[in-house]
Amino acid sequence: MQPLENGQKTLASDAQRCRAAIRLGTHTGPTAGLAPGCVQANLMILPQDLANEFLLFCQRNPKPCPLLAVTEAGQATVPSMGESIDVRQDVPKYRVWRDGKLASEPSSLMDLWRDDLVTFLIGCSFSFEEALLVDGIDVRHISQSTNVPMYRTNIATNGTKRLHGPLVVSMRPMPAADAIRAIQITSRFPSVHGAPVHLGDPTLIGIRDINRPDYGDPVTIHEGEIPVFWACGVTPQSIIQTVKPEFSITHAPGHMLITDISNARLASF
Amino acid sequence: MQPLENGQKTLASDAQRCRAAIRLGTHTGPTAGLAPGCVQANLMILPQDLANEFLLFCQRNPKPCPLLAVTEAGQATVPSMGESIDVRQDVPKYRVWRDGKLASEPSSLMDLWRDDLVTFLIGCSFSFEEALLVDGIDVRHISQSTNVPMYRTNIATNGTKRLHGPLVVSMRPMPAADAIRAIQITSRFPSVHGAPVHLGDPTLIGIRDINRPDYGDPVTIHEGEIPVFWACGVTPQSIIQTVKPEFSITHAPGHMLITDISNARLASF
Repeated sequence: MQPLENGQKTLASDAQRCRAAIRLGTHTGPTAGLAPGCVQANLMILPQDLANEFLLFCQRNPKPCPLLAVTEAGQATVPSMGESIDVRQDVPKYRVWRDGKLASEPSSLMDLWRDDLVTFLIGCSFSFEEALLVDGIDVRHISQSTNVPMYRTNIATNGTKRLHGPLVVSMRPMPAADAIRAIQITSRFPSVHGAPVHLGDPTLIGIRDINRPDYGDPVTIHEGEIPVFWACGVTPQSIIQTVKPEFSITHAPGHMLITDISNARLASF
Repeated sequence: MQPLENGQKTLASDAQRCRAAIRLGTHTGPTAGLAPGCVQANLMILPQDLANEFLLFCQRNPKPCPLLAVTEAGQATVPSMGESIDVRQDVPKYRVWRDGKLASEPSSLMDLWRDDLVTFLIGCSFSFEEALLVDGIDVRHISQSTNVPMYRTNIATNGTKRLHGPLVVSMRPMPAADAIRAIQITSRFPSVHGAPVHLGDPTLIGIRDINRPDYGDPVTIHEGEIPVFWACGVTPQSIIQTVKPEFSITHAPGHMLITDISNARLASF
């Protein structure tokens, strides 16, 4: 990573202020809309043994699991994504999973931290949605102020020995011309899911009812609009829940880790 | 990966014929120019323990170490890159390293194979050079029929606990307009090193004499041409040689693994 330029320094200080408020407990809610322009990341924390295998899973499934950073075991800092980041304290709400079941939703991991825990920061669609909005494309769940609709598909991920399961996708409906433009724009952002995985007929990827998403909320699809499907960062959580490891930690949905990195820097060119 | 289309089937059968000749020992030399259109891969084989760390190193250094595939320990096949591939027999010349020193250069690994060996296939610049040539750009070491010049730089890779060392780059000189075009073209190929890491003054990245490469051969730089530097697949070999692990295997330079995948399929869009 290059040293930050002036404009990036301003963005970074916004991110640092937000993380400070989260760490102090003065901000406890979702992070959408906070520190605009800054990358927000999905979080996955696993014991070393399973972490090695999850790293392999991410290598085999870069569209749902685009890695922004991976720590050493026990390391709570991620200097490449922000000097002051502490992954144990900087997310407003965590989810602790035991044997695949939700065990608790703490606002800090200081009491749970272990020397064998490896942290994965995974790209999030917030980054490419900002690029779509800047281009004048209507992102329906944002204009309707709901969560993006997400669906389990019949597309299998490329599994490892222990980690396997179906791809989860998010859907954004748009007119054809916008869909083409959205494909061009998101192709430039491979580290936040990249180009769509499908468009058009939802049944071809195993989605029975587009109005009944498996996660998030349904959105209005206007006459003549095409549903466009992107690989979704919920996939690794879904896989972990399927595989039921003894212990893992994720962020709570919508409660992301805000980094110092600008979304623009994630563009591949 | 999608099922192969007809044109890809023809490419794949070329690749299969080449691998068969290599496996039988009727082809023993370098692979440049064989099975045109097919991806050729750098090879790195490591025991499981160091393989976990090398996977992390690749995640942190995607430009020199773009991963095309990683096997399970002991697995000699790589179906995602070609149904019939056997990594123990399909490379014309291997290099076996013991304690960082070259121990032997066998043409088969059948006698050396172990259940704990993990194979990494890493993208190779052959793929993007084909795209440059198709675009009418003169790739100097190809038109001069020599090896590409490669240099150790003063740019550090992003290390792990045991794996660290300088970035190695390859250099192709070209007029400015071609350099700009080459940046656009190679940006589309992130899995074979992607966009250049530097252009212009070689001393800024620690190269003292452009006419004395550390690996490969010098090439002519015409008046007004700019040297353009790409991250190079020799970097992981150089790192392994620096770190001197007890046991590792690579391909011999220029003796690559030919896969069934078409270079065109590596384009990000």
